[in-house]
Amino acid sequence: MRNNFDEETDNVEKSHKNLISTYPMFQDVHVMIFIGFGFLMTFLKKYGLSAVSLNFLVSALSIQWSILLHGFLHPHCEDPKVEWGECPGSKPYIDINLVTLLSADFATAAVLISFGVVLGTTNPAQLSIMAFIELILFNVNEYIGRTHIKAVDAGDTIFVHMFGAYFGLAASRVLYNKKAAESEKAGASQLSDLFSMIGTVFLWMFWPSFNAGAAASGDAQMRAVINTYLSLCACVLTSFATSAMFSHTRKFSMEHIQNATLAGGVAVGATADMILTPVGALIIGSFAGVLSTWGYSKLTPFLSERWKLLDTCGVNNLHGMPSLLGGVLSIIMAAIATRKQYDQFNGDGSDSLHEIFFGLGEDSTRDGAWQAGMQAAAMGVTLAIAIGGGIITGFIMKFVGAFTANKDNRENRVGSKFALSYSDLYDDNGYFHVEEEEESA
Amino acid sequence: MRNNFDEETDNVEKSHKNLISTYPMFQDVHVMIFIGFGFLMTFLKKYGLSAVSLNFLVSALSIQWSILLHGFLHPHCEDPKVEWGECPGSKPYIDINLVTLLSADFATAAVLISFGVVLGTTNPAQLSIMAFIELILFNVNEYIGRTHIKAVDAGDTIFVHMFGAYFGLAASRVLYNKKAAESEKAGASQLSDLFSMIGTVFLWMFWPSFNAGAAASGDAQMRAVINTYLSLCACVLTSFATSAMFSHTRKFSMEHIQNATLAGGVAVGATADMILTPVGALIIGSFAGVLSTWGYSKLTPFLSERWKLLDTCGVNNLHGMPSLLGGVLSIIMAAIATRKQYDQFNGDGSDSLHEIFFGLGEDSTRDGAWQAGMQAAAMGVTLAIAIGGGIITGFIMKFVGAFTANKDNRENRVGSKFALSYSDLYDDNGYFHVEEEEESA
Amino acid sequence: MRNNFDEETDNVEKSHKNLISTYPMFQDVHVMIFIGFGFLMTFLKKYGLSAVSLNFLVSALSIQWSILLHGFLHPHCEDPKVEWGECPGSKPYIDINLVTLLSADFATAAVLISFGVVLGTTNPAQLSIMAFIELILFNVNEYIGRTHIKAVDAGDTIFVHMFGAYFGLAASRVLYNKKAAESEKAGASQLSDLFSMIGTVFLWMFWPSFNAGAAASGDAQMRAVINTYLSLCACVLTSFATSAMFSHTRKFSMEHIQNATLAGGVAVGATADMILTPVGALIIGSFAGVLSTWGYSKLTPFLSERWKLLDTCGVNNLHGMPSLLGGVLSIIMAAIATRKQYDQFNGDGSDSLHEIFFGLGEDSTRDGAWQAGMQAAAMGVTLAIAIGGGIITGFIMKFVGAFTANKDNRENRVGSKFALSYSDLYDDNGYFHVEEEEESA
Repeated sequence: MRNNFDEETDNVEKSHKNLISTYPMFQDVHVMIFIGFGFLMTFLKKYGLSAVSLNFLVSALSIQWSILLHGFLHPHCEDPKVEWGECPGSKPYIDINLVTLLSADFATAAVLISFGVVLGTTNPAQLSIMAFIELILFNVNEYIGRTHIKAVDAGDTIFVHMFGAYFGLAASRVLYNKKAAESEKAGASQLSDLFSMIGTVFLWMFWPSFNAGAAASGDAQMRAVINTYLSLCACVLTSFATSAMFSHTRKFSMEHIQNATLAGGVAVGATADMILTPVGALIIGSFAGVLSTWGYSKLTPFLSERWKLLDTCGVNNLHGMPSLLGGVLSIIMAAIATRKQYDQFNGDGSDSLHEIFFGLGEDSTRDGAWQAGMQAAAMGVTLAIAIGGGIITGFIMKFVGAFTANKDNRENRVGSKFALSYSDLYDDNGYFHVEEEEESA
Repeated sequence: MRNNFDEETDNVEKSHKNLISTYPMFQDVHVMIFIGFGFLMTFLKKYGLSAVSLNFLVSALSIQWSILLHGFLHPHCEDPKVEWGECPGSKPYIDINLVTLLSADFATAAVLISFGVVLGTTNPAQLSIMAFIELILFNVNEYIGRTHIKAVDAGDTIFVHMFGAYFGLAASRVLYNKKAAESEKAGASQLSDLFSMIGTVFLWMFWPSFNAGAAASGDAQMRAVINTYLSLCACVLTSFATSAMFSHTRKFSMEHIQNATLAGGVAVGATADMILTPVGALIIGSFAGVLSTWGYSKLTPFLSERWKLLDTCGVNNLHGMPSLLGGVLSIIMAAIATRKQYDQFNGDGSDSLHEIFFGLGEDSTRDGAWQAGMQAAAMGVTLAIAIGGGIITGFIMKFVGAFTANKDNRENRVGSKFALSYSDLYDDNGYFHVEEEEESA
Repeated sequence: MRNNFDEETDNVEKSHKNLISTYPMFQDVHVMIFIGFGFLMTFLKKYGLSAVSLNFLVSALSIQWSILLHGFLHPHCEDPKVEWGECPGSKPYIDINLVTLLSADFATAAVLISFGVVLGTTNPAQLSIMAFIELILFNVNEYIGRTHIKAVDAGDTIFVHMFGAYFGLAASRVLYNKKAAESEKAGASQLSDLFSMIGTVFLWMFWPSFNAGAAASGDAQMRAVINTYLSLCACVLTSFATSAMFSHTRKFSMEHIQNATLAGGVAVGATADMILTPVGALIIGSFAGVLSTWGYSKLTPFLSERWKLLDTCGVNNLHGMPSLLGGVLSIIMAAIATRKQYDQFNGDGSDSLHEIFFGLGEDSTRDGAWQAGMQAAAMGVTLAIAIGGGIITGFIMKFVGAFTANKDNRENRVGSKFALSYSDLYDDNGYFHVEEEEESA
């Protein structure tokens, strides 16, 4: 019987090396997915158990589905010489190694970003169907973007953050419900804000592992770690400063601290392994913090009122706009990249430029301008698939919701178009047994 | 004066290599012990401080005692050529290296599993004496099982989970008290459930490190990581599904989400480094989730009422039954193991079968059937020592409890046979200074 | 344009090795700074959001400022042969690699220790100015101590813990305000105590990485891990025991469990990489636990009443006194160190003594007594700069505070000498928007 792990996994030396070099970063990313996203979303005062539990369920589902999808798109062969694609004379198989697990975590992040948009206004069945569809489109989009367009995106700013954010926002627009927009439960409490900070801080600390996890081993990976670290540090300062500035009483808002402080990680992602210089990384992070805090303060209320766009976690501010910023930065950095700059400190003769911009290495007529165009193309395709897919998925979720509404409350559900009864919105009681506080007195 | 660290620790190169290859996994396991177990047990609404603090105390005690016990059973010699056992012409000593610390954490896990059974119904003195006795029997049982019976158990399903669970359950049966069974404090609140999820998620994420930490370096360790990861993912899905199915209102129960989702890690432990294939791992995890959820829903109430068996954390469902399942799986996997299967992908000529089933390498007349028998024997011995030792320890704990009851409440303690007064059951106030909420208003 | 990462970062092989050997320990230390310190300080019942958020802000600020300061003191040259100091014929630059980030985290720890002293009685502007000044003095003191005095301090007991503690205590004495000493809000609640335990446990688990992170690679680093681990385990036991002993009702105090259990990591820091022997490490940790618990029980109330010294987190007990103990231990261990002892197990001919006590290797007339003198000198200089600098900084903070008081409450602020209004003391409402609990009902 076929083992289904790849040759590397079954080789003593290679397995040992992979475990040493990749496992710690993989576990950092794993913590970001389950603790980071899970607890970041516990900020709603009555929805903490749902947030962390549904994050757990959706992630476990997404990881498995993503391993299958990735395997279907990138089948392996018995013959070790044929790395990808069709297998002449032998059955293709799905290989599973540490990079597979890491990739599954990245794909899951996109789903969780979309989940953040519709947090508290969707039921578990709707979330499962969303994860199912979104991952298909996510994998197709990433395949097009990386393999065909040859765009580079070490920290998945375009393929994860931009895709997840606009997919979720598009679906949320379709699912819009007035009652949800007016719910008094869609707020935080002092304790739920503190739980949420657990998520924030773990995301913030391990973000360098996220952006560097899939980078080319060596100097590129090291730059990804350091650029992300610097961008995030700068982002904290401008987020706090902007938060106080936007407040009449000059007080900090926890919503900004929990979220905008992370925008620097998103914005720097696509260019993290490039030669940004430390000053460049600091500037990117600083600007991302201002942009994101502005979004939470001014843009989200506007979008909710005028555009009927509910965004529970403010995903547009943390992932959406910073990813657009990051994507544009990747266009600029690609346009100005030169071999001289990338290889000046490489004493060992390695070709750092072509390792990062792998498309340039394949054809000597290609240059930075070509790569810049490819970055723009990948952004366009990503936005098109995300928004188009999100709208369609929103309608499917509406349909699914109508059939899977909580039985007890189906009578009182909010209009015929919506799955959740009014009392279930942003409330653990909808789908979880909650121990009443009165009983504990 | 003797340094007491082993030769490896005092050697520059070896120390460096050991730190790189073992330290990250050791720290993952360390987090499981202190954050994972500690916060998982904070689910009781009035016992959170006690749970995490007593977990801290009992673990720090167990680690030190375990290092000594392990050293007594496995003394080192000045002469580096004599690895284990008696030292001709020189004094034996206890060596301490990263593997020592990792082993101490594993042994501590067994104690914490037993602690989970009697959580809230025992005082610190009783827990300390329990840890003291349990670790002696744990080390003896593991020594018999691994060195003499030559059973294999990479993830310690048999030696840690099965031993800890049935030791604790046996002691709890002896300590049974009707008042504890009827206490209204033995429940959760929304906030305590959220704290508990911190423990759940850290245990779930780092379980691959637990099952792989002691596996043979290389492909066996990689398989242990991947099989455990897959089993846990599948287990989450079936736990959620079964939880909703067992509920009249189709709602999820936090108790199931906090615990049953982890059963896949227990069930796959003994066979994690074997060639289960990914599909095999997924099936094991799926079944473990159903079994564990069923236990929480149906079996625990039954055992409490009919068999007078209190099990505060439902250890029988999370560790007990899944470890029986895992033990049986190790019998089956050993029976069908062949050299051909294990070495097919080992391009480097290493002997993977004999690395995992080390007993087979010692004697060429032994085969899979022999190993299967040894697995069964180790399970039998483990159950016998755990249950017998647990019963005796329960009586000693009863005796100790009578002398160490909280002075202030000794008058009102529950019957002469029991240490804790009724008001101390499942209540931080028994042994911790608690700031009253009224003061905070 | 200059890349500003050092040659190692731009070299494929070296970067890869550095990431493997240093990154996991760096991330452990990172978790200690942001989760460890951040959540440890959430114990105040109404100040949790401020504690974790201001910890986040001050740390992000300190890291960036520290990278600059460290770079100014230790500039790099284009010419890779000139490692430190002036650059003949080329512009010096600041290099940034993993060790830079790790060092920045260590420096930040000193600031956070001082923050713990004045937690709840200072505003964000005062904290920022404190961090700004303290880091200058911190870097100067460490430069004098390590480069000129040639003191050794692997775990930064002297340079981080002693410096941070006495700097903060000196500033706090200057900032003393009677109203703060009498505030009823300066206490904990059951839930805030539980949040605080998240910080305690992460600090406790990862302290071996803190003490070993900067130790010489190989056997010295391994000893730092194991000695710290053992000291911390022993410290837990004596902290619990002493806590119960100092209580009339024989109950444990959460303040002791949260803090005194960590004193073993401070006390063993300066000598962690030396040959303490395991028994030595256990004794150090045991004594540190008793000393720290005694401080919390008896000394802190005395200092507050008689010496007008407020110390919100009891930093003198966790960092101050244990660092004095650790410093004295480093004098003793240096005095008795011999080449024979350090090299007895080094089968590879490396010079372990001179690797640890690097000053001895530079001049063969120097011996253990000389090193002992240098340890004492570094302690003296550290205390002088910390206390002197802390007093001056306290006055500056007073001045800054008067101008940055919360506008809304300036009328009611506590005397003209103090920035915070009475209602803002130990209260999130002072500088953070807090969602009222009433709204959530």
